[in-house]
Amino acid sequence: MHVEIITIGDEILIGQIVDTNSAWMAQQLNLCGFSVKQISSVSDQESHILNALKEASSRASVVLITGGLGPTKDDITKKTLCKYFNTALVLNEDVYKDVEQLFKERGYEVTALNRGQAEVPANSIAIRNAVGTAPGMWFENNGVVYISMPGVPYEMMHMMEHKVLPKLKAHFKAPFILHHTLLTQGIGESRLAEEIDEWEEALPAFIKLAYLPSVSAVRLRLSGFGDDKNQLEIEFQKQLNLLRLLVSKYCFGENLETLETVVGQLLKSSNKTLATAESCTGGQIASAITKVPGCSAYFKGSIVSYANEIKEHFLNVSKDDLINYGAVSKQVVESMAIGVVNAMNVDYAIATSGIAGPDGGSDEKPVGTVWIAVADKHKVFAKQFLFGKNRERTIQAATLTSLNLLRRFILNELE
Amino acid sequence: MHVEIITIGDEILIGQIVDTNSAWMAQQLNLCGFSVKQISSVSDQESHILNALKEASSRASVVLITGGLGPTKDDITKKTLCKYFNTALVLNEDVYKDVEQLFKERGYEVTALNRGQAEVPANSIAIRNAVGTAPGMWFENNGVVYISMPGVPYEMMHMMEHKVLPKLKAHFKAPFILHHTLLTQGIGESRLAEEIDEWEEALPAFIKLAYLPSVSAVRLRLSGFGDDKNQLEIEFQKQLNLLRLLVSKYCFGENLETLETVVGQLLKSSNKTLATAESCTGGQIASAITKVPGCSAYFKGSIVSYANEIKEHFLNVSKDDLINYGAVSKQVVESMAIGVVNAMNVDYAIATSGIAGPDGGSDEKPVGTVWIAVADKHKVFAKQFLFGKNRERTIQAATLTSLNLLRRFILNELE
Repeated sequence: MHVEIITIGDEILIGQIVDTNSAWMAQQLNLCGFSVKQISSVSDQESHILNALKEASSRASVVLITGGLGPTKDDITKKTLCKYFNTALVLNEDVYKDVEQLFKERGYEVTALNRGQAEVPANSIAIRNAVGTAPGMWFENNGVVYISMPGVPYEMMHMMEHKVLPKLKAHFKAPFILHHTLLTQGIGESRLAEEIDEWEEALPAFIKLAYLPSVSAVRLRLSGFGDDKNQLEIEFQKQLNLLRLLVSKYCFGENLETLETVVGQLLKSSNKTLATAESCTGGQIASAITKVPGCSAYFKGSIVSYANEIKEHFLNVSKDDLINYGAVSKQVVESMAIGVVNAMNVDYAIATSGIAGPDGGSDEKPVGTVWIAVADKHKVFAKQFLFGKNRERTIQAATLTSLNLLRRFILNELE
Repeated sequence: MHVEIITIGDEILIGQIVDTNSAWMAQQLNLCGFSVKQISSVSDQESHILNALKEASSRASVVLITGGLGPTKDDITKKTLCKYFNTALVLNEDVYKDVEQLFKERGYEVTALNRGQAEVPANSIAIRNAVGTAPGMWFENNGVVYISMPGVPYEMMHMMEHKVLPKLKAHFKAPFILHHTLLTQGIGESRLAEEIDEWEEALPAFIKLAYLPSVSAVRLRLSGFGDDKNQLEIEFQKQLNLLRLLVSKYCFGENLETLETVVGQLLKSSNKTLATAESCTGGQIASAITKVPGCSAYFKGSIVSYANEIKEHFLNVSKDDLINYGAVSKQVVESMAIGVVNAMNVDYAIATSGIAGPDGGSDEKPVGTVWIAVADKHKVFAKQFLFGKNRERTIQAATLTSLNLLRRFILNELE
């Protein structure tokens, strides 16, 4: 089943915004077993839109259109769709009630301009918009389904998830599909591929693996497609369990989890507390932890000790160690971790000290060298890493690596 | 002058990556006076690529193609271009030397597979790749220019900047163009538009303004186009100065500056130091400041005081104030700012305390309420803000607002 996506509007063509809508839609469609044949971004011009519709419908059975549904003059999608299907706009009473309701909630009167929002082409089925004023539209014409949606990401996503995808799946009797993602950290894509090569080669044709790499982490998405739900579920679960075993050393979570939520859950469930002492990461570990709602249950705070005097004064790092070993050393990062456990009276701590660059490197300690320590009230574990020459990537890699080290420390997985 | 962009490869169509290349290219092309007519993402299939080339060349004078130039079997762009232009691949000696050189540097021998990287269609001019092995190609055919580039963002950007854009500008005698961006914070797009409405309406036709909004900040990009360089420069400078005056209250910098670099520059040039005391921002202000290389010259550190006991113990916040006014209050945030000035012995400090949500709000202090204070050794200034219900946006807005408050505090712009 082939789908094409057409995004309408000049913002993408002038490079003002990145087209994240299409990537998200493509991802969701693929997860449902629909393959996207082409994505086209076109301008707010009638002839250009008409041409894009004609071309797309010659190649695909479903054409998804986003954008150009606002109330202003430059939004011409609906008018153009009328011309394309040789029909006219009619008021949809249900949609009009939705618009009225939304305006009432915001304390406005419905104007003539907004009344237009409730008009849809006569040959379409209106798709009501639960989070905005512009309705979506579903057309069937010469065996092709056309769906027009708002370009506002939040509204489009809501409509796709709750209305369009279920309707598409029902309309085309999509195959049964399963997805499951394992999240790994601390191993590169190619080494990971080597380690699971044999298993991957032996996968049945209806189960596929995708590698989704980002800085210092790789997500492994297993997808299964089939008509026999039971058989698929059994084989999928078997392969998923095999993969879990193979990558257990690197896997920190599954599906929508993150290192912050996994570590937070571990702490919360055992009633333990955490603090960080950060030099090169500059507060990014604390910042990541506090992005999770409810983190105040386990996170007490952080000493961002960029200057050495702060390491001495707040974390009880010895001046001698700073002089003898340097701030980027096993001795100092261990003292920082122990220091913040004591100073903030917490159960666990993370400490980092490194050279994020671009300056400050040496032959012995090149840019990208980072020492990370994790500690509790009784012991401390420290390890050195080399993350490369890019400042932002080094900080990001150090942040994720720290959180994963703490996770393994809590689980007694570090020797 | 119309340009079309074709990106080749399945990664975008399965939603594995977001097409940031096209947005960047469109932006650069627009800045040079070329307008992008359509962007199309197509699969790694010969017939599909051939069709996209035919369609694009019927609408545009320049067709930019990215992707599909790697050494493996699924990279078929070169072969397909040969078929499209009815020609064959020939070895390019210069490119071969480049590939050889690059492999030598990395300590590898050139294989037959990599030798193929040095082959280009006979009717093309090779564009040498200074940062990778795949060359770009320039074709001229029936009045249309086709340019094929690697899909790796870093390689494509380097080639666009150093080879393709200069060559396109020379080929099409592009008009003279000027751009300048003013950066504002703390005022919404629509209020900003109202304040400069009269000036914007009176702009000459060859000077245009673009609003580029993001969380809590709006960039204003002024662009001028013309054939008479002198006249354009005089008028552009005049309008830019008028705009500078109109938005001076909100403008914190220009072009590629950021609040972190502007504040850093202010501190560095006056030999002053900074620390932060962060509650709701959880270390994100420190993290932003330390993203700037060389920040150790002025940034000493931060106390991320998520728990109240940390506010008391490290920042000398009084227990009475915490009980009587709550952690999110003028009294507490002022104490935090003064506390960190003293504790870290710095010239300036920022402190934040707020309710990022989703829980913890009340009628009196709803979710999104944030108190921010800035202080030096003699005085303190605090202000309350309401940033809305989204946790991440509130933290981001509080971070930028804090940095801008500090900037204005240093410049004596706060009453």
